[in-house]
This record gives sequence, C-alpha cells and structure tokens, in this order.
Amino acid sequence: MERRSFLRTGLAGVGVAGLTATPLAATVAPRAFAPIFNPRASADGVVKLSSNENPLGLSPAARDAIVNGLDEANRYPGNTGDAVYTALSDFLGLSRDHLFLGAGSTEILRVSVQAWAGPGARLVYAQPTFEDVPSYSRPFPFEHVTVPLTDDHEHDIGRMRSEAEKGSGPTIVYVCNPNNPTGGITPVAPIESWMKEAGEQTLFLIDEAYFEFVDDPRYRTAIPFVKDMPNVIVVRTFSKIYAMAGIRLGYGVAHPSTVRRIAPFTTRNNPNHLAGVAAVASLTDSELVGRSVAVNAEARDLVTGALDDLGLEYLPSQTNFIMHQIRSELLTYNNRMMDAGFSVGRPFPPMLDWSRLSMGMPEDMARFAETLMDFRKKDWI
Amino acid sequence: MERRSFLRTGLAGVGVAGLTATPLAATVAPRAFAPIFNPRASADGVVKLSSNENPLGLSPAARDAIVNGLDEANRYPGNTGDAVYTALSDFLGLSRDHLFLGAGSTEILRVSVQAWAGPGARLVYAQPTFEDVPSYSRPFPFEHVTVPLTDDHEHDIGRMRSEAEKGSGPTIVYVCNPNNPTGGITPVAPIESWMKEAGEQTLFLIDEAYFEFVDDPRYRTAIPFVKDMPNVIVVRTFSKIYAMAGIRLGYGVAHPSTVRRIAPFTTRNNPNHLAGVAAVASLTDSELVGRSVAVNAEARDLVTGALDDLGLEYLPSQTNFIMHQIRSELLTYNNRMMDAGFSVGRPFPPMLDWSRLSMGMPEDMARFAETLMDFRKKDWI
Repeated sequence: MERRSFLRTGLAGVGVAGLTATPLAATVAPRAFAPIFNPRASADGVVKLSSNENPLGLSPAARDAIVNGLDEANRYPGNTGDAVYTALSDFLGLSRDHLFLGAGSTEILRVSVQAWAGPGARLVYAQPTFEDVPSYSRPFPFEHVTVPLTDDHEHDIGRMRSEAEKGSGPTIVYVCNPNNPTGGITPVAPIESWMKEAGEQTLFLIDEAYFEFVDDPRYRTAIPFVKDMPNVIVVRTFSKIYAMAGIRLGYGVAHPSTVRRIAPFTTRNNPNHLAGVAAVASLTDSELVGRSVAVNAEARDLVTGALDDLGLEYLPSQTNFIMHQIRSELLTYNNRMMDAGFSVGRPFPPMLDWSRLSMGMPEDMARFAETLMDFRKKDWI
Repeated sequence: MERRSFLRTGLAGVGVAGLTATPLAATVAPRAFAPIFNPRASADGVVKLSSNENPLGLSPAARDAIVNGLDEANRYPGNTGDAVYTALSDFLGLSRDHLFLGAGSTEILRVSVQAWAGPGARLVYAQPTFEDVPSYSRPFPFEHVTVPLTDDHEHDIGRMRSEAEKGSGPTIVYVCNPNNPTGGITPVAPIESWMKEAGEQTLFLIDEAYFEFVDDPRYRTAIPFVKDMPNVIVVRTFSKIYAMAGIRLGYGVAHPSTVRRIAPFTTRNNPNHLAGVAAVASLTDSELVGRSVAVNAEARDLVTGALDDLGLEYLPSQTNFIMHQIRSELLTYNNRMMDAGFSVGRPFPPMLDWSRLSMGMPEDMARFAETLMDFRKKDWI
C-alpha cells in the first residue's frame, strides 16, 4: 500500500472494500515533534488532558488559510461549503451526494438521532460509550437499551442485535469505533452481517472520530457499506487528528437517499467559513496525520510505561486517550490532578475507579508520569 | 438617551420597557467609510448584493481576536462559550439564563421550530418573509398558514392572530421584525397584547436580525417581554451589523424556562472558538454599529435616488436591503445583473417582479445605479 495515499484517504488506493488499517506509528520516525504554534495547554496554564484534543495545534496550512480567509468572513459560507464537499469527495473517493457536513461530528450525531426519532423508537448503545447520542435523544420518546462491553472491551454486537430486534419501530444502533472512553476497536465483520440483514428502520450510526489512530489490523472503516446500504451513517470529524476541535467541522457519510432524509435537520449555512478553509487546507497537509499519530504514540508509550511501573491496569488504546485504573475515588483524584496542574477526564459509569486520560505533548506526559509516581508515594493511587 | 449606551445595548440605559429606537443615521457623520480590510465583494469579482451582508468586513477588533485565538483552535470551545454568555449578558442587561447560542440565528430558528413541533402544530407566518422557519419545519407535521402583509407592508397581526386561534395544538407565530425581504417594521403593541393573552402553547418567535438598522420611532425590540413571558423567543445575530455572516454566531433571548426547554435541541460545543472571540471583541468596538449604519444609509440614499429617477417603486427600508420593482421577469433580470457584475437577491413569492437588493459599499452602489440607468436605456427595466 502506498503510504501517502493511505494517509490522505484512509481508504487506500487499492479500492474501498475490504480495507484493513495499516500500522501507522511504525512507519513514522519515532521522535517528538515540537508544537507547530506553541498552542497553550489551556488559558489558565493547566495542561488539558480531558477532551481528547490534539496537542499539536492547527496545521500551518490551516492557520494560513484562516488568516487569508478573514477578508471573506463577512460573507455567508456557501462557496466554502462547496469547496469542503469537493475536497472530501476527492479524499474519500465518493461522490458528494454521499456526504453531509455539520458543526463538528456532534451535529452529525444530532441530526441522525432526530431523523430516526418516532413512536416506539429504540436506541441501543454500549456502556460505557460517548454520551452525545443519548444526550440528543432526550427530547424524544426513545427507549434506551444499554449493553455492557464484552470482557475484551469490544461492543457486544450479538447482544446489541438481540436487544435491537426486540423492537418493531425505528431503531438506532450506535457504535463508536474505536470506542470512547475505552479506546479499543470492535471488529466490523459481525456488524456487517447484521447491517445486511436488518431492515431500513434500523440505523447503524458508526462513529469513527478516532479512526486515524488505529493500528489494529482487525479494524475496518464502515464507509464502503454506505454505497449499497441506506441504513448506515459513518461519522467523521476534523476535531481529533486535524486538531480543529475549536472551530467545528464534522461530516457524515451515507447513501444519497439517507443524506436527503437527513438534510432538513441540519443547520443551514454551515460549515463556518474559517473551519471550511482550514479543513480544505488540512487535507492538503500530507504530513499532518503521520505527525499526529507519531506524537500520540510517543506520549502513549510514556504513560503506559509509568502505568506498568505502578501496576495500574489500563486498556489497550487505539486512540489518543487511555482508560486506566486509579484505585481511588474519581472526584478526589481529579481534584488532586487539577491541583497538580492537569485536567483529566470525566466520569464514565460504571468505570468510576478508572480515569480517561487524553494524550498531550510527550513532555507534558512525562510530567504527568512523574505526578503519578508522586501520587503513589502519597498512597493516593 | 445617551447615544453610546444605546449603540452598545440596543436597550438604552433608561430601562428596558417601553424603549423606542432612536434615529441612528442622523447622528453619525454622513461620509463613506473605507472598508476596514478591503474585504472582497466575492471570490470571483462579482459584487455580492444578494445576502444582506455587511460590506465593511469584520471589525478590526474581531480580526485581531481571531488571529490571537488560533493557538487555542485545537481545544473545545467551552471557555469561549462562557465568555460569549458573559459579554451578551452585560450587553443586554439580562442574566445569562435568558440566553442561548447558535451557529448563526438560523440555529435559533431551527431549535425553536423543533422544540414546538408536535401533533396538530400550526406555523403562522407572513408572505413574503424569511424562509428558514418554514424550511426547518419540513420534517414535522406542521400546518402552514401564510398571511399576506398589509398594504403598508407590515405583518397583519390581526389576521395572524385569528388564524393562530383556529388551532388547538402548539403554534409558532413567526414575526421577522424588520421583515426580510420587504425591509419595513411592524409595530410591537398589537403583538404585545396578543402575547399577553395567548397561552404557553403559542410561541412568538421574533426575529430581530436587522434591528440595529431601524430608525422608525414606532419600533421596539421584544426582548423586554421575555422576563415575564415564557412564550417569546427573540432572535439576534452577529451576521448583519457585526459582519460575521461567515463565522456563524446568533443568539436567542427567552425566559429561563424556555431556554431549558430549547437546550437539548441545540448542537453541542457551539459556538465555535473563533466566532466566540470575534463576537466578544466586536461588542467592545463602540464604533462598529454607527459605522455600519452610516455606510448603509449612504448606500441606500444612492440607490433610492436612482430608483426615484427611474420611477421604479421601492419599499421604505429599515434594514440593509431594499425591495424594489424591476418591471421585468426576475430570472432574466438576475442573469443580466450577473453579466454586469452584480449578484442580486432571490425570488420571494408572490413579489416576483421585485428584486431584493442588499447594500454594498457606496462606490459599488454608485456603479449599480449606473447599471440600472443602462438597463433602462436598453428597455430592460
């Protein structure tokens, strides 16, 4: 597989179907990169390790595009949206009628929930998983069905399927792959079989916010399925690997008929002009993905080394965060970490004696590792 | 009334209730301002007079804030949102639990429609008016009731009321004030009486996107009503007077109970960081509103002078656009204008031999006026 092609499209030049991910970190020089623009960890000097952001900051190309774009910031962003659709269509090798944009991937999740809401609707999702889908379902009469992850921290597709099939109305099956907050992947094969046999009332909402970080060869993107299946929406974001969490751009990939069904729920005049020009520029930065993956891998090695030394269990991570044991009460731990200058992740029931730790720059993670050692000396973990 | 206070808050220092607008243009030096950043009319050199944008471009303060904000564009915008709420709360003199933010005022309209959708719901609006509210209602079973404007081009509140009262379910009454595309205001007194007598099922959605341009002393903002009435949402935007159409920030003002009802329909992690810092900075630019009003008034005088010379009827404008007769078929007219380098407004049925013309810079409007004269010579208008 030609490396640059993979980095650019995530689908490789060899054709879309049957793709498996290639180990990225192994082929990128394992050294620390300096932050491109010295992005501050946070406004108050606390190192922010709580929201799975990319500590490298915007691509230089994105930054330049934003500054150049300021002269047109007084104009509605219709032309910008067109440019984003064109760039994504090239990037994915799919015609643009398979795509829709949102103010972050969270808007893709919102419109998917709203478009499938209705009498007798069910929402089937893992516990723990990312909370936005249940959150957006609140105003609607969904029946919520949560299914614990397997012992291997994968989605329990068999049990999710049997729960989904108990309903007779519209059903949303939300699969965050890799899963937030646990960081592991779920193999796509059993989901694929289910997709093929399920009716159009069952929407498979596959959230691939972190897919660029994956090096598990069992992983596949679900994008190829949208060509034939109107009951699949794949969710992608510029917030993570592209470091654009603050400027809000995500996209959905789906069958054109599904895109048309979703369209009236989206907010008009998105994406914003500056996110649009930044996204188009970021897709031209051929080193951005490899650079982010390499920095993340270096940071992750530092943290897992410390966790191994301390005998604290952690889940193998295919993402830019690590779920690890803290052997203490989460709120107390979080407050102590804040006092030490680190903001770490929120509670994810039922894993309330575990912490979701986002990767910062390697030097920050080295300090974090020292802080963990210090906590052990104080018998706090 | 102390002038700067009015410009800053739109509510004046004398207390919120009973406020009438002050003629703004009359108190601002009537000269052309150069564009602050030479914003391009559009990417392809066509002068864009079709979307009611502010031709002056971003405030210098907003531009600086965006450039300074790039270092944090990789972080989720939670802190930025807090700063916007604080700035708007100060600006309006209302506690922040009366406010909610959206990606442009269009998101405020979207969530309002979605939160009031339900069996037997009615949507009552003028014809012609801004199309986003009917557009967002499409996926829901609203009964649409359109009510023509009065002969004075005001909302026909009496008839809207009798139509609304025919329903028994939730009802949205959309009043764009001043109205887009006709540009005139509707006095608030009869709406106020109705609001007080209507039940909570009737939502008054008052769109004040253009309120800063108004100098008709009969005009009042509806914001004071939200303190006591949970069935009023006032819609405001940074797209028009603040020239931020490309970067998407609007806000809703409502009773705290209504804000809570609306909240689960909004997209999470908005506003985007760059729009947020630009908005906060724009509110500190004490000359921005007066500058925009003055340039708009100068442009409008140029255009109305030409329309008077040509004997083409136009509606008195309290906004940054003018609805005027073209005495020809709209599509043909628009194509001819595009050939002459001007993009002008879309069709607004039933006024299909009228054109909605947005104000550009005065020098562009002088060229536009010459083009109109040329069209007359060709017998095209």
